[in-house]
Amino acid sequence: MEQETRRRGRAGGRGARQAADSKSATRSLAYRQLRHPYEPQSIFGADEINSIHKTALRVLEELGMKILLPEAREIFAKAGAKVVDEMVFIGSDIIDEALKTAPASFKLHAANPEREQIYETGALLFMAGAGCPNATDNERGRRPGDLQAFEETLKLQQAFDAIHLLGPSVEPQDVPIHLRHYAMTRAQLAYTDKPMFIYARGRDQVFQSMEMIQTALELSDDDVAGQIWGWTNINSNSPRMLDNPMAQGIIDFARMGQLSVITPFCLAGAMAPITVSGALTLQHAEALAGIALAQMANPGAPVSYGGFSSNVDMKSGSPAFGTPEHVKMQVGAGQLARHVGLPWRSASGAASNTCDMQAATETDMAIWGGLMGNATLMIHAAGWLEGGLSFGYEKFINDLECIQSVAELAQPTSGSDAEIGFDALQEVDPGGHFFATAHTMARYQDAFYQPLVADLNNFGSWEEAGSLTSTDRATQVWKQTLSDFKAPAGCDERVARVEDLISKGTEAGGAAPLD
Amino acid sequence: MEQETRRRGRAGGRGARQAADSKSATRSLAYRQLRHPYEPQSIFGADEINSIHKTALRVLEELGMKILLPEAREIFAKAGAKVVDEMVFIGSDIIDEALKTAPASFKLHAANPEREQIYETGALLFMAGAGCPNATDNERGRRPGDLQAFEETLKLQQAFDAIHLLGPSVEPQDVPIHLRHYAMTRAQLAYTDKPMFIYARGRDQVFQSMEMIQTALELSDDDVAGQIWGWTNINSNSPRMLDNPMAQGIIDFARMGQLSVITPFCLAGAMAPITVSGALTLQHAEALAGIALAQMANPGAPVSYGGFSSNVDMKSGSPAFGTPEHVKMQVGAGQLARHVGLPWRSASGAASNTCDMQAATETDMAIWGGLMGNATLMIHAAGWLEGGLSFGYEKFINDLECIQSVAELAQPTSGSDAEIGFDALQEVDPGGHFFATAHTMARYQDAFYQPLVADLNNFGSWEEAGSLTSTDRATQVWKQTLSDFKAPAGCDERVARVEDLISKGTEAGGAAPLD
Repeated sequence: MEQETRRRGRAGGRGARQAADSKSATRSLAYRQLRHPYEPQSIFGADEINSIHKTALRVLEELGMKILLPEAREIFAKAGAKVVDEMVFIGSDIIDEALKTAPASFKLHAANPEREQIYETGALLFMAGAGCPNATDNERGRRPGDLQAFEETLKLQQAFDAIHLLGPSVEPQDVPIHLRHYAMTRAQLAYTDKPMFIYARGRDQVFQSMEMIQTALELSDDDVAGQIWGWTNINSNSPRMLDNPMAQGIIDFARMGQLSVITPFCLAGAMAPITVSGALTLQHAEALAGIALAQMANPGAPVSYGGFSSNVDMKSGSPAFGTPEHVKMQVGAGQLARHVGLPWRSASGAASNTCDMQAATETDMAIWGGLMGNATLMIHAAGWLEGGLSFGYEKFINDLECIQSVAELAQPTSGSDAEIGFDALQEVDPGGHFFATAHTMARYQDAFYQPLVADLNNFGSWEEAGSLTSTDRATQVWKQTLSDFKAPAGCDERVARVEDLISKGTEAGGAAPLD
Repeated sequence: MEQETRRRGRAGGRGARQAADSKSATRSLAYRQLRHPYEPQSIFGADEINSIHKTALRVLEELGMKILLPEAREIFAKAGAKVVDEMVFIGSDIIDEALKTAPASFKLHAANPEREQIYETGALLFMAGAGCPNATDNERGRRPGDLQAFEETLKLQQAFDAIHLLGPSVEPQDVPIHLRHYAMTRAQLAYTDKPMFIYARGRDQVFQSMEMIQTALELSDDDVAGQIWGWTNINSNSPRMLDNPMAQGIIDFARMGQLSVITPFCLAGAMAPITVSGALTLQHAEALAGIALAQMANPGAPVSYGGFSSNVDMKSGSPAFGTPEHVKMQVGAGQLARHVGLPWRSASGAASNTCDMQAATETDMAIWGGLMGNATLMIHAAGWLEGGLSFGYEKFINDLECIQSVAELAQPTSGSDAEIGFDALQEVDPGGHFFATAHTMARYQDAFYQPLVADLNNFGSWEEAGSLTSTDRATQVWKQTLSDFKAPAGCDERVARVEDLISKGTEAGGAAPLD
């Protein structure tokens, strides 16, 4: 114990500094196509999973889903579902059929082929916080989301390779809603080259956004029909309801061959049963209903099982994230996704209202929950504060430290003779140090992950440098990142190709969202 | 996505509040005997583990260990090891023999039988930060450790059931070193009833501390000989050196039948090779040497494999904790411990100098590393700051949130029909809520983990309440905990029984530590 606290003096000796000062670190941060490092875990036995699955089927068949969109009800009716007013009772044959055609693996395309992602079980993709109505940072404070914040947070998403998919980080509320899809698609084209997001806010907005992507990337109709260039997130209105834009989004994305991620948002104790297994049963039923709609609209359409279940705090009534229940539901959701043979989307998140240890631990726990649940996609993994009501710039940078660490864990570790280094062990006398061994000198530049925002200086040096917290340092990091930002190659050309579409669309009155 | 950020308004409705206000929560926090919730993970293949093990044996046999204590060298020589001056060359037959007698499971006794712990693979035990020369909190600032801080942090360790073993949290530097063991053992007797710690600072201090425990707990000689009532931590001086107090501690604890946890502290790139596999090879060799010494001193003596390997920051030369390399080494150490069939001790930790997101993420990552490595004991899991140079009171409270969450993950989750709650799903209309269902009402009081320090209020309520960070709230929590603290039953009697021993020992000049 005394060694564990006292020997750092030696570690900080001249040897280390000399080694480090001689050349700068070069470890690659290109965490582009990751695979899960750990085996999927379980909280339920096979019987229990079977029981949850069967109860979910019973919910769909006996209790039914309220589906507001007539077109969606017609699709269900045509497949043999019983429809009574807005209620749709979905037999297990419909679900079984859908699970036969839903693909287990597909590729997400991007302007830059190096950013392509395989979406399947075993892949590990991260996304920033999404859907935030506010933005907050230490320089400008908390404010309603606007286009500037959306564009800045897109640049941050672009700048770090461990963020794999783009998302609607901050809502640009200063752009009228009927024109907002132009601005959001344009900004992604202008500043990024990663797989793109489209809000499912009605057919017109969706089609116009897809047209912008096709035009900007000069894709043929065949390209668009056969490849995935845009994705959307579908939330059911738990319990057991699918509203108009969501149902239409499922249908449209399926028919276009683009990806919809069907994610019930089930808060146990509020919009879902208070138990882990009960909330997951509801989540499973709603996800299966959405997946079925997509498959009926276009068999084989790319869809993802989605799960974002957590608990509500019974004291305040607020949603909680990163709780043990949230983690358990991620592990259980992973079991259910494996049960139906589909990749799945999970979510991290934080309820904290500021960048404190609570915020970090909530997000860290939820990210590890996604790892234990073997989630293919983890949304809200960086930047979520206040349960998603604010996108925090400093939170984003600090969360990235956790995500980049996980990305490092996904890198292989060698136990070869050369890596073990018996020669180095032989070279150093008892009580000596390894700073100058050939084994160290050959590796020191990129042996270890270099922290993004963590400060590893000792207390004295840290205090002399102004006693900055990791939040303070994160302000420097995001400011520097934005100030260094250069749009990736091709962005100017891509965005130039759509300016005309935007002008004409705007003149024509844009596209009102579907209520 | 819009649902994911907008529906909290509903969750915060009257229903939840009414349900919550009617009675206070009663979920038990008695996280006393935990088992690992997840399967052990791997980073190395079986061949690589075999190779690391064999290379470690080669290190012991060909390169040898420098062992300063003549008595320890004699024990090795008697078993057939080659001894040249202070160097001891340990054949693999000695290690093999030791691994035959080292027990894979044993019980740690405590003044309170409810605090007993089984120490074996699969068990999950947490300990607070240990060995800190300083203490820090938001009320009194950073200061050299003293007896008051040691006693306060003991009370904090006692107050939370998720802390299972006592440790030397803060060094009471205001007590002269030759009397310090009296004060540290007395304080544990006076304020706690959990398994107790003794520093291995020389035979006299160890024996006198054990005598105090025996006297205070009114244990017979047979009790002490056959049961474990005290434990110590042994750090080798990496690379390949064992100093006098550590070697003597191994011998003495083994002969007394008390537990020594043999933990090389290998910082890759400094006192150990720069690679994960190289550092683990050195760790493995040193741990096996210590375990062999214990088994030769007393075959069958309780020992634990220990691993506290992390990396050094090549920029500052400082030790780093919670890094990807630290996590990888935990997973690899778990594989090596399983390879030799022994339970193992790991460590969390944080290099951050203050309670910020860095501090939380470092500790969280390292705790999850211990989970992935299936460590039986995680030391430094709460309160470590500055790489162990300070024990942080607020850090302790915040870290407990992570530990208690993990303790919750270790609780079983039911997927029974009653838990799933088809009736509740039937009771609630589409788009409705579950606040008032019988299923919810029967469970809401203890359905969810109640956060210790996390604030789940929405931004407005949080701001009105003073915009407190989780660090600010942690100050309130530790102050309240100390102010509410009552020593457990029997403490006064136990401590009264040793006052005489302490007086006489003090008059006799105490016991100087072994250099």
